[in-house]
Formats: sequence, structure tokens, C-alpha cells
Amino acid sequence: MEITPDIAARLLAEHDDILLLTHSSPDGDTLGSAYALCRVLQQLGKRAAVLSEELPQKFEYLQEYILPCEFTPEYIVAVDIAEEGLLPEEAQQYKGKINLCIDHHISNSHYADKYCVEPTAAACAEVVFKALKAMGAIDSLTATALFTGLTTDTGCFRYSNVTPQTHQTASELLKLGAQGHKINKLMFETNTKQRIKLEQLALSTLEYFCEDKIAFMCITREMLELSGAQSGDTEGLPSIPRTISGVEVGITIREKADGVLKASVRSNENVCSASELCSRFGGGGHAAAAGCSFKGIPLDAAKVVMIEAAKEILENGGTRA
Amino acid sequence: MEITPDIAARLLAEHDDILLLTHSSPDGDTLGSAYALCRVLQQLGKRAAVLSEELPQKFEYLQEYILPCEFTPEYIVAVDIAEEGLLPEEAQQYKGKINLCIDHHISNSHYADKYCVEPTAAACAEVVFKALKAMGAIDSLTATALFTGLTTDTGCFRYSNVTPQTHQTASELLKLGAQGHKINKLMFETNTKQRIKLEQLALSTLEYFCEDKIAFMCITREMLELSGAQSGDTEGLPSIPRTISGVEVGITIREKADGVLKASVRSNENVCSASELCSRFGGGGHAAAAGCSFKGIPLDAAKVVMIEAAKEILENGGTRA
Repeated sequence: MEITPDIAARLLAEHDDILLLTHSSPDGDTLGSAYALCRVLQQLGKRAAVLSEELPQKFEYLQEYILPCEFTPEYIVAVDIAEEGLLPEEAQQYKGKINLCIDHHISNSHYADKYCVEPTAAACAEVVFKALKAMGAIDSLTATALFTGLTTDTGCFRYSNVTPQTHQTASELLKLGAQGHKINKLMFETNTKQRIKLEQLALSTLEYFCEDKIAFMCITREMLELSGAQSGDTEGLPSIPRTISGVEVGITIREKADGVLKASVRSNENVCSASELCSRFGGGGHAAAAGCSFKGIPLDAAKVVMIEAAKEILENGGTRA
Repeated sequence: MEITPDIAARLLAEHDDILLLTHSSPDGDTLGSAYALCRVLQQLGKRAAVLSEELPQKFEYLQEYILPCEFTPEYIVAVDIAEEGLLPEEAQQYKGKINLCIDHHISNSHYADKYCVEPTAAACAEVVFKALKAMGAIDSLTATALFTGLTTDTGCFRYSNVTPQTHQTASELLKLGAQGHKINKLMFETNTKQRIKLEQLALSTLEYFCEDKIAFMCITREMLELSGAQSGDTEGLPSIPRTISGVEVGITIREKADGVLKASVRSNENVCSASELCSRFGGGGHAAAAGCSFKGIPLDAAKVVMIEAAKEILENGGTRA
């Protein structure tokens, strides 16, 4: 059943022993949104916790926003998770048992009992902010967690998903004490030796197809080893190919430790829908940014099929709005 | 006399034959603010024009927002100009004759007859927006011109000058039809294949010294040839080494076509003054960014002497403020 943020707030207020699920390869939006929710729920005197894969280093500050809390989960909430396939391994046991989903992906598969999905929101944090406003006080740390989601999912207010509402939310969060500048610096201006080396290695694989309308890049396990980079150091790299002038579709394939290949697509949504491309391979996301996975095939094979599919979409006159 | 944006709006409404001055080396804020003002004044049936140095290519679209208009200026308005010394050559004749100044620099020297200065505004465009709201309709192109000022002066809402009001203004401008995404893309996402290739080649030369406090990178003529990059494509590259965490001094040496070596230093000014380092080799600049040149020695030799000098500064306890 589809519900509003206000109803979501009421449901959360009515329950206890709440477990908040985040998606695999967690980003700033799934984490910022979940930690903000958890903090407010704990402040309301509830038992609540966030279940996630290990936090990328730059999001570790969020852990201090909540208290450790052990309980038997009674109410399961998925945050920023478009479909159950995106649940991390730790959360597989909750498949089919999710009570509430708060999300902003248009491709949300409505797997939860109740779902509160606003596809016009640039970040899940915008939807969570509405629910939290209905629930009570938002302090500066909660606001900072939400700001983390808002700024990371919009590339610091740069992407096409930004709406008047996005800036309105940013304005309100800053008024509530969100440390916007600190977070932006941490997210967008902090390089490491390892990350820079990984970027250099990834950029060396850039190839262009279809009259330079498609740019392809890959990040192999060997590159991660050579650079000493962590998996979190790949964040933002898939955005690079699309920034090259003339490129309509940027495809980045990353080899994960378990051999799974994760493809990230960034596209000019007016020309080629990233979610259309990724949905051909069982993935999904937004028109401008989407992802999919491959298992059991070599990287070169995944590259070929994705480039062929992107070519086909482009040659058929692109995506129609 | 200090006045509010509302009074500034009234003064503009009361006058005609209005000339809007912009500062030398014009940026997005002085231009976006002046063109927005000019557009509204022209829509109100007034004769108005913008006086500026030649527009940098990426701001050329602003020229289409106003009509050419010739007249003898009766009312002179300085936009985003902190002091008369910043007037371009074309505007020198108006020194001491400026009727109104709209600005946001705390250092504004109050050189105009009336001045409307709001130092808490992140961009002059925020102050102009207030005045224009008091004057009448703001259409989508006016909003886009103002958005240009807002986003360029805040590094796309990333700098420490951003306030709740900044995001509030952005929200209102988007509601008025500002093409925020298009402008952000134009200002912050203009990569070329050649530039990306050059960046990759340059990054591959990164080396670290002095417990990683010094990072060194070079850009050779061979790299320019290999990548097909133009000398303008090197812009911004020397900033990269210093963004790496732990690095206090980033040194980039670029080989020019005539064999001259240009060194660019970016540093944490509290630890090692870039201008002190460069002055040892006949160069200079600011504490955080400086440069120097070498002629007749090989790149490797220039690298060695610069790294030795940087080491010495760091090992002597760094620059004292």
C-alpha cells in the first residue's frame, strides 16, 4: 500500500524494535537517511538500529549519531532500497518481511507491505526529512545526516535531479544546524593517495564508442590491489565518463571481490535512459544514473553487451520522454 | 549612504539611461548579476546596458538576454565591485561618478553615492535578486542569469559562504524557471577527451616525498602531444596534488613548447608558503598558490631542486605566519 511521509511517520511512531535496512555498496543517501531516522527514533525512546555493510571510511562519523542497541527486530524498514535484490547479504533474511519502505527511486518494485516513495525527490533524505518533520525535533546531527544524503545524491546540488524542493530542504537543514560545508568538503574535496592512483588507473582504460557518444571505463580487482584503494574509494569515479563533452552515456564496470561485476551508468537522460539500459540486465535506477550486475561472465563480455545495448538505444533515436 | 535592496529597486525604477558596470576579469557573479538587472530594466522600458571586458566564452549566452542599447549614461551602477580599483579599463571614466553600488564584499570601500552591500550574501546575485523581486516580474532568463552568479560564487553550493538564504534563493530561482542544471553543467562539468587523457597521464607521474607531505607531478610536451590537449587544458591540474590528504605542498612542473619549465605550487599556507618556495627561484605569488620558471635545465633537475627546497622549508618547521 502506498503511503505519504506523514503516514510513514505515524507508523514509525506506533512501532518499536525498529531495524533500518540500507542497500548494498552503501552510499551517502541510504546511510544518511537511515542514521537520521535511527537517531530520531532513539531520541523518541525507541529501540532502533541500522543494518548495513561495513561503512565506507568517509561515512564513519554517522556511527556516532546513534547508540548501539540490541533487540529482536519487530518492524523492518528499508531505506533508499529500490528492490529487494539490492539488500546486502546481512539483510537477506528480511526478504519478503519488510514492513515499510521509504525511497525515491521511480523503479521501486513495491516489495514492502507499505511503501512511501517520492520519485521527484532528488534524494531519499528529502522523503525522510518530510517524515521526520512530522515526527518531532530534528537536531543538528540529524540534519547533518540528512544533508549527507542530499548532497551526495545530487553531486553537491549539481545533477539534473535537483528541484526547488531540494534547495528548500538544504536551506531548512542548514537552519537546523546541518554542517553543510564540513560535509561537502569531506565528500567532494578529500582525495587519498590510493584514490588518486585508482582514478589514474581507471582513466587509463577509457574507451569511446559510437562516435564518442559512449564512454567506457573499468575498475578491476588488480587496480584496487595496485593502488591500495578500498572499495569506498571507487565512489564518484563512474560519474567521470559522462562529464566528457559529447559523451551521452558513461558506462563503468567494477569488478568486485566476489567476482560479481557491478555496472554503473550515467547518461544524458534526454538521449538515453540509464535505467532503461540497466533494466535490460536486471538492474534499475534513475533516468540519469542507474546500475546493474553481472555474475559468472568475464568483464570483457559484460562490456560488449552493455555497449551494444547502449548503441542500440542511441541508434533507435534514443529514449523518448 | 547605505541603502536596502528595496530602496535600490526604487532608485533604479526612478532613473533611466542606466549603465551597469562589472569588475575586471569578469566572473559569473558580476556578469550574471549585471545581465539580470539589465534585462529587467529593459523589460520595464528603460534604456540600460552592461559595460564589461570581453566575456569569457562560457558566459557568452548572457549576451542574448539583453538588447543592444545606445545612450548617454545618466545613472551609473557598479555590480559586485568591491572598490573602484577593480573597474576595467573601459570603465575608468566613471571613477568617482558611480551613483549606486550593489555588492556583497565585506571589504566594499563605499566609493559610490549610494551603496547596497550585504556581506552575508554568498553572491552579489542574492542581493540583486532581492532588489529585482521588489521591482517586478523575474522571468526564466533573468532567473538563469542570477543562478549563474549564485552557483559560480559558491563553487556550486560547496564553499563555506553558503547560508540557508543561498539555498532559499536557489530554490526560488529554480521555481522561476532558472535552468540550474544546464548552467551547472556548463560551469562545472566541461571536460574534453583530451583533457581527461592529459589528466590521466599527469596523474601517472605523481610521486611523494618527505613522508608524503610533498607531492610532485609533471606535464611534459610528450603528454600534450599524446593527449592532443591544448595548453588551456592544463587549467586546474596543478591543484590536484594538494587535495590529497596529508599533502602540504603540491608541486607541478609543466614543460612549455619553448623548453621553459613552469612550476606551479599549491600549499597549505599555514605549513609552507608557496610564495616563499617559489621566490627562491625568482618566482612569486600568494601563500597558498605561487609559481616560478626554469630555463636551460632538464625537468628532472628542476624537480630535484624544488623538492629539496620544499623539504628544507618543511624541516625547518615550516613557514611562520
